[in-house]
Amino acid sequence: MPFRAPVTDFQFLFDHVVDFADVTATERFADADKDVTDAILSEAGRMCEEVMYPLQRNGDLQGAVLENGVVRTSPGFAEAYAQIAEGGWISTSASQEHGGMGLPHSITTAVNEMMSAACLSLQLNPLMTQGQIEALEHHASDEIKALYLPKLMTGEWAGTMNLTEPAAGSDVGALRSKAEPNGDGSYAVSGQKIFISWGDNDFTKNVCHLVLARLPDGAPGTKGISLFMVPKYIPDANGEPGVANSLKVVSLEHKLGLHGSPTAVMEYDGATGWLIGNEHDGMKCMFTMMNNARLGVGGQGVGVAEGAYQHALAYAMDRKQGRTPVGDGAGTILDHADVRRMLATMKADIFAARAIEMACAVAIDMGTATDDKDWKARAAFLTPIAKAFGTDTGIAVAEMGVQVHGGMGFIEETGAAQYARDVRVTAIYEGTNGIQSMDLVGRKLMDGGDAAYALLDEIEDRAEAVRGTFPELAEPVWQATETLREATEWMVAQGNMNDRFAGSVPFLKGFARVLGGYYHLRAAVAEGGQGPRSKLAQFYVKRLLPEHAGLLTHAMQGADDLYALSAEDLGAA
Amino acid sequence: MPFRAPVTDFQFLFDHVVDFADVTATERFADADKDVTDAILSEAGRMCEEVMYPLQRNGDLQGAVLENGVVRTSPGFAEAYAQIAEGGWISTSASQEHGGMGLPHSITTAVNEMMSAACLSLQLNPLMTQGQIEALEHHASDEIKALYLPKLMTGEWAGTMNLTEPAAGSDVGALRSKAEPNGDGSYAVSGQKIFISWGDNDFTKNVCHLVLARLPDGAPGTKGISLFMVPKYIPDANGEPGVANSLKVVSLEHKLGLHGSPTAVMEYDGATGWLIGNEHDGMKCMFTMMNNARLGVGGQGVGVAEGAYQHALAYAMDRKQGRTPVGDGAGTILDHADVRRMLATMKADIFAARAIEMACAVAIDMGTATDDKDWKARAAFLTPIAKAFGTDTGIAVAEMGVQVHGGMGFIEETGAAQYARDVRVTAIYEGTNGIQSMDLVGRKLMDGGDAAYALLDEIEDRAEAVRGTFPELAEPVWQATETLREATEWMVAQGNMNDRFAGSVPFLKGFARVLGGYYHLRAAVAEGGQGPRSKLAQFYVKRLLPEHAGLLTHAMQGADDLYALSAEDLGAA
Repeated sequence: MPFRAPVTDFQFLFDHVVDFADVTATERFADADKDVTDAILSEAGRMCEEVMYPLQRNGDLQGAVLENGVVRTSPGFAEAYAQIAEGGWISTSASQEHGGMGLPHSITTAVNEMMSAACLSLQLNPLMTQGQIEALEHHASDEIKALYLPKLMTGEWAGTMNLTEPAAGSDVGALRSKAEPNGDGSYAVSGQKIFISWGDNDFTKNVCHLVLARLPDGAPGTKGISLFMVPKYIPDANGEPGVANSLKVVSLEHKLGLHGSPTAVMEYDGATGWLIGNEHDGMKCMFTMMNNARLGVGGQGVGVAEGAYQHALAYAMDRKQGRTPVGDGAGTILDHADVRRMLATMKADIFAARAIEMACAVAIDMGTATDDKDWKARAAFLTPIAKAFGTDTGIAVAEMGVQVHGGMGFIEETGAAQYARDVRVTAIYEGTNGIQSMDLVGRKLMDGGDAAYALLDEIEDRAEAVRGTFPELAEPVWQATETLREATEWMVAQGNMNDRFAGSVPFLKGFARVLGGYYHLRAAVAEGGQGPRSKLAQFYVKRLLPEHAGLLTHAMQGADDLYALSAEDLGAA
Repeated sequence: MPFRAPVTDFQFLFDHVVDFADVTATERFADADKDVTDAILSEAGRMCEEVMYPLQRNGDLQGAVLENGVVRTSPGFAEAYAQIAEGGWISTSASQEHGGMGLPHSITTAVNEMMSAACLSLQLNPLMTQGQIEALEHHASDEIKALYLPKLMTGEWAGTMNLTEPAAGSDVGALRSKAEPNGDGSYAVSGQKIFISWGDNDFTKNVCHLVLARLPDGAPGTKGISLFMVPKYIPDANGEPGVANSLKVVSLEHKLGLHGSPTAVMEYDGATGWLIGNEHDGMKCMFTMMNNARLGVGGQGVGVAEGAYQHALAYAMDRKQGRTPVGDGAGTILDHADVRRMLATMKADIFAARAIEMACAVAIDMGTATDDKDWKARAAFLTPIAKAFGTDTGIAVAEMGVQVHGGMGFIEETGAAQYARDVRVTAIYEGTNGIQSMDLVGRKLMDGGDAAYALLDEIEDRAEAVRGTFPELAEPVWQATETLREATEWMVAQGNMNDRFAGSVPFLKGFARVLGGYYHLRAAVAEGGQGPRSKLAQFYVKRLLPEHAGLLTHAMQGADDLYALSAEDLGAA
């Protein structure tokens, strides 16, 4: 079954749902007109279909292995990576000064999502490099930029992020890795890092590790952390990979999924590194790229959902089982009501998650292009929702894809289960979805709810405007937004942050449910209420949107009932 | 981390929530008094903890393999099976006449669930044998009974069920396997069967296959199917395994989970079989055992949920990460609100699913003991809910267990992911959860809703009775039951079955949500509102019960919007 990149879906979203025209109307992104955008999306889509998708199963069956300290990647990955790099897909949004295309992040987000759908384990590699490019663009010295950026942008070198340690996961501030000045402007970096995605490979000439570590005078906690560039091979005088650095891959993890992506335990033993940004400013440097990285992971969830959906739909359109209730009764299982309900749910939620993802990307671009604080606040607010809802949707859709396959879903050969295994980590890495929800109700409501209310006002204005013409959609969306407003006000009013945290996950999910209704409404309006997107909007608003009420009720319970349950109560059988 | 069998939870449910005293008050089950029940549960629990649980990881890492046509089971499985058999755990509810204990099915259900929690892949073996024993008890000739039942009950021989074929899954009636009379009272059975759980093993002296096949004069569809006993070795004159039958294991499936359970493709090539029940009555014979088998699978879901919960709780009580918001701030991640919310959700849903499971088992026992049609209708009504909600809960709790583990959840060594992989099939086999929901809104409402309404009346009566003393719990449960009554009435009123099927899954889920509220209420009342179960009931009623409204709205949309979406609409990117 071939994979078909959802190019037309992105074009529709750009044109009708997320106001991408606002982005191309800015001076910064004036070049990204419709012709350019369409051409790039189409070309990226073809690459995903033809180059990456054929590797999806291979990456699972013949995953990366560590042999004598060297990572051997899955068959075909090296060749496909070369084509990704050659196509410029690593640096679509990177600065033109160092070789990037300088296109809006919205384009990159769409391209990354399609690549995730085709082969997530390989896509993770350029995603990490993109994050590194962004960090360097913002914080590295000109010398470092000139040395590393061109090679990262062409894909000649790859980049990784080294944050986590055994005792420092969600709590990055607990890290123990150290860096000591060598006296020549470089630093000796030592420590062990775990869960390093694509910690090494056998197809780039160098692997550039961005490593968080503490200087001797670094304070405890997050405030005393600095960021270092620690390359696998130290660049020589010509900027080419020179002597090997004092670092190694200790082992690769045995994971539930993403077997094609080598997840490394890295050991740094006085490895030579260079400071990125100021001393003790490592967390700030990481935060610069974290929003985009989180959006990127949300897009991974949506991408896998797309892949799993297409896989399940193809099966449902082929498999015959039992007399079907429509037509001549000889249809495939797609004609059974519950199978159809599952597929419509998958498609409707993919649309919702993708629209949230692209709305977030557009807000990032508007913030970049205009430096407007409201756009930046919008981007910051949407990011945790895009990350968590995108990945939750990835997991839920992949699970439903397994169910559509019936017994065959449990058999690995069909590939349905692989989507579910691969995507599972996206709800965990780059900040668990629990951390995302705490970010949403904590940091992202520190403005007293301004960014949230601006979004709710926008939804209600739009719904109001079409209340007369699309009452079946506009009315429930407006009502749901009012319920969400109450829940948001409740959140903002809680002085004890833990009362917010106690309902943060259902709050985020409820928020996403309402946003999904809004974007479905816009799609239906754009179609004039006639067409496949309008029917899907009806489905979503009638069947899925109602979930918001239960979620938001759950969200507003405060923390007391949780702590009333003692550890003993929870353990008592 | 050790596994602790939830013996006290079953005792509490029996004593206070599901009216097990009604069962022991019958003449049939008078022997199963509290002392007996407690002793059996405790002994079974100990066996699960000490014998089965240590094999949980092994069964995954060193799964069953097919070597030269012979199945080799995981290390330790043979020895553990011997202890399961010796303890009598295969035949707790089997007829005393042939060596069983004759205890209520409620006891067996509880024991099976604990076994599932300890090691699902091994537990599946005796579960299949139990189903075969039940089918033979009801439908086999005295001769077959005398020959097979004693050996199945002691575990000397194992039993399997052979229904599925490549083109006949949910639609059993499409099967192509044939049986022809040999003229000596036996039949020659031929055909290929797939997804045969424990299709062979290396620790029982014989493997007895119950095979569905069509006689030469069998009508097409389900009405022309007959059931045959086809043993691996044909019993000799002394009833001992004799010559090998013409059947073989062609291959074992490569599955997402349950690696310890060999899932076989079986080939029957004129194998000698004996008719069970009347000719063409195969489906009726299967249906006899199907209710209990479905409940058993529901219990598998609950069992895995229990295992996954204990695993996650132990991790959360050990792992430190970040400053915690209570006490001295140096607590483990259990003290973070969202982790606590996840664990409370897991525990509250396990309670709900287990209570539904045990209420169903009690109804089965009351039906058996009294032959009362209302009890039988209650059992039949609760069965699809117990199956689907039990397994959905297994999947959701295991997924949440992965999330509680954070990054470690994606690493196979922690074992968290195994629960999720293993339990996934329970929502598929023994009738997918979609099929369960169609059974619920179709066959199980064919009485015009009598069985459903009797249950709703019971809930409302109980809620009414404690409205004054437990208003916070009783009022929402009563209100939710009214909403459920409306949804049930809507279902009953739909003449076009497809309108029911279009919302059957959310209807079943909504029904389970309300039932869960009812049993939590009863638990809290039994505790006098003071204690861990009361706190958990508060949590459930305030946070999870509200989901019922969205689900039941979803349930009442009818089929039109589904079929408005054409296959092309669903495929359009």
